[in-house]
Parts: sequence; structure tokens; C-alpha cells
Amino acid sequence: MEFSSKLLEKAVNEMAQLPGIGKRTALRLVLHLLKQPSEQAHLLSQALVGLRDGIKFCSGCHNISDVEVCEICNNPGRNHKIICVVEDVRDVMAIENTNQYKGVYHVLGGKISPIDGIGPGQLNIASLVEKVKSGQIEELIFALSSTMEGDTTNYYIFKQIKDYNVKTSAIARGIAVGDELEYADEVTLGRSIVNRIPFENSLRNI
Amino acid sequence: MEFSSKLLEKAVNEMAQLPGIGKRTALRLVLHLLKQPSEQAHLLSQALVGLRDGIKFCSGCHNISDVEVCEICNNPGRNHKIICVVEDVRDVMAIENTNQYKGVYHVLGGKISPIDGIGPGQLNIASLVEKVKSGQIEELIFALSSTMEGDTTNYYIFKQIKDYNVKTSAIARGIAVGDELEYADEVTLGRSIVNRIPFENSLRNI
Repeated sequence: MEFSSKLLEKAVNEMAQLPGIGKRTALRLVLHLLKQPSEQAHLLSQALVGLRDGIKFCSGCHNISDVEVCEICNNPGRNHKIICVVEDVRDVMAIENTNQYKGVYHVLGGKISPIDGIGPGQLNIASLVEKVKSGQIEELIFALSSTMEGDTTNYYIFKQIKDYNVKTSAIARGIAVGDELEYADEVTLGRSIVNRIPFENSLRNI
Repeated sequence: MEFSSKLLEKAVNEMAQLPGIGKRTALRLVLHLLKQPSEQAHLLSQALVGLRDGIKFCSGCHNISDVEVCEICNNPGRNHKIICVVEDVRDVMAIENTNQYKGVYHVLGGKISPIDGIGPGQLNIASLVEKVKSGQIEELIFALSSTMEGDTTNYYIFKQIKDYNVKTSAIARGIAVGDELEYADEVTLGRSIVNRIPFENSLRNI
């Protein structure tokens, strides 16, 4: 790609560093910014730098937070004895959106993935194990994605806490509500059958 | 979308102002930046603000340029009597990539689109008409996209210059090189037949 301006080229190259943004898309985005009032580029830049430099993580659950202890960890109405283990802030947001969970979270910050050079030491696992060791926790709910990395991470944590008196569970996998059985993949459908639940329980959310 | 951090929310909202970037994608991009060295967010911000504040347009063709007159307009090896009329800098880049065009450009900066509130006054049309009036121009090549807005813009310009002694042409529309006829839409195929060219000419690029 040949640019008529070094400034344009630099902006496009930086934008194209973002995941899923190729050079053509980056050019489209940058040209869009050029057509907007100068304020918009300034606001975007300030917001990005402001977040990057001002970012804090909750000392309790490691979720992104503007204060020392996040709203969820600070909420006395929530059950602090149940911890849902998730990968990142997006998972917390997704579960919070369901309005079905009243416990707290523990954000690992990723999954164990040797291929990407991410070992257990880079994740917030030690602090989770400490919480369990303290004896204050009744249940850990594993809610990582069901990939090889997710399963490895779950198992790594499970091994470290299995000797302590804590219940462990994993979120249910199965056919999505509203999906047709015939289009489901066999692994998911198989798990749905093996992990079937009493019929009365299936009525709870109706 | 409920955010655990105002800084995060602000960054996501600003990012989601860009075209084609929804809130979920914006969140993914912003979280990616958080995982990168702080430098990357700073470089991106500086590049965007630097471009927005430092942007210049060539006084000849209105293309984005770091200098008063862009490289193409400044090149004595190009034919300054042939002007290709395009919508924006992306079109200049696309045509330059073909290495088939040795004239110069005129960047309109958009198309006439009443629905978006863009009239002829907001586009670089007056300066193009001036160039034609000067009598120095032999040919105008219309290379706007073939949408209603593109056609309207072409026709608007054509009306203003038709009394001056200048040849006008439009880029050829037809089946793309390598495409199968059976998959072409009928409008394109129809134009391909109506605007057929002498067979000898079709061999030129082989």
C-alpha cells in the first residue's frame, strides 16, 4: 500500500496493529476520523491513553476497576463464599447480564496456553488458591471456555485445591435455549444427554 | 453493556464511534490494547491526533499530502492534461496500484448525497470546473463508484463543463478479469456487451 502522506501511513499502521483490523479497514477508519470534527480524534486518543495509564484491577477479584475494590466485591448483598472463575472482564459482563448469579468472581486474566507462552505464573491463580486455603470459600464455579486451554487451566487449578474442603462445579454445557437439536454438534448434544437434569429443574426459568 | 470501570466504558464508547465497530468489537480492541505494552496505546493515540491536526491537502488535486503540492501533481513525467476524478484518497491509491495511469487526479472528497446532507458546495467541484475553464485540460475521466450518488455527481460536473472544449470519459464497467460470466449480475454483463471493445484492444494487457 502506497501512501501519499507519512502521517496517514503512520496512523494506518498503528491502527492495523489492533487484532482483526487489516490495513484496508485501518485506512477506512482513519479516513473516517479525518472527516469528523477534530475533537473526535482527540477524545478517542485521550480515552485510550487514559485507560492504558489509569487502569486498575480490583484487589479482590482482579477485574478491571477504577477503585481499589470493585463494586461486585464491595457489595455486601452478594455471596462471597461462591466464586466464579472466569478468563477476563468480558466474561464477568456476560454473566452479570444474565442476572442469575449472586456470588463473586475471580478473573484469571487468560488461560494457560504454552503455545502463546502463557504459563500459570502469568495468571491470577496463586491468589485464587490462597482464597480457597483461607477456608472461607464454599464453592468454585469454573466458567472458562471449553477449549483445550480452558480445560487445562481448570484442571491445573483443580489439582491445587482438591485437598481443601471446597465444592467445585463447572457451568453446564448443552444445547442453547431455542436451538434445534438436529443442528447441534454431537459433542454438545452428547454432553446435554449425559448431564441431564431433573425435569422440575428445567422449569425454573420459565 | 454494564462496565466495571468508567475509564473502560469511555474508551469503548469512543472506539465504537468508528464505522463498523460495535460495542463488542470495541471492547475486544480496547482489552487487547490493555494487554500490550503501554507504548502501543500511546503510539496509536499520537498517530491519530498527529494526523488529524497535521493533515494537509494538495493544493492541486486535494489529495491528502504532507506537502503543499503532492508527489503526483509535482511529477513532470505525468500528463497534467488528463484528470481522473475520484471520490477519495483510497481511489487514488487503488488506481496508482494498477500502474496503468499516467495522468493526474482530482479528489472530490465525497459524492453528492442529499440524504447525508452533502451538496456540491461541500465537495471540491468548483476548483475542478476552474481547471477545465482554464482550457489546459484535454480529458476528464470520471471514476466515481457507479451508485446513484456517483452518477448524480458525475452528471452535475458534466453539466457544468459540457460547454468547454474537454473530452469526458468514464472508466469501463464490465465483468472482472478472471470472473465467470454465469455468476455476473445482469446489469454488469449487459454493460459489458453494450460497451464491447475491438478485439485487438482486449489483448493489450496480456
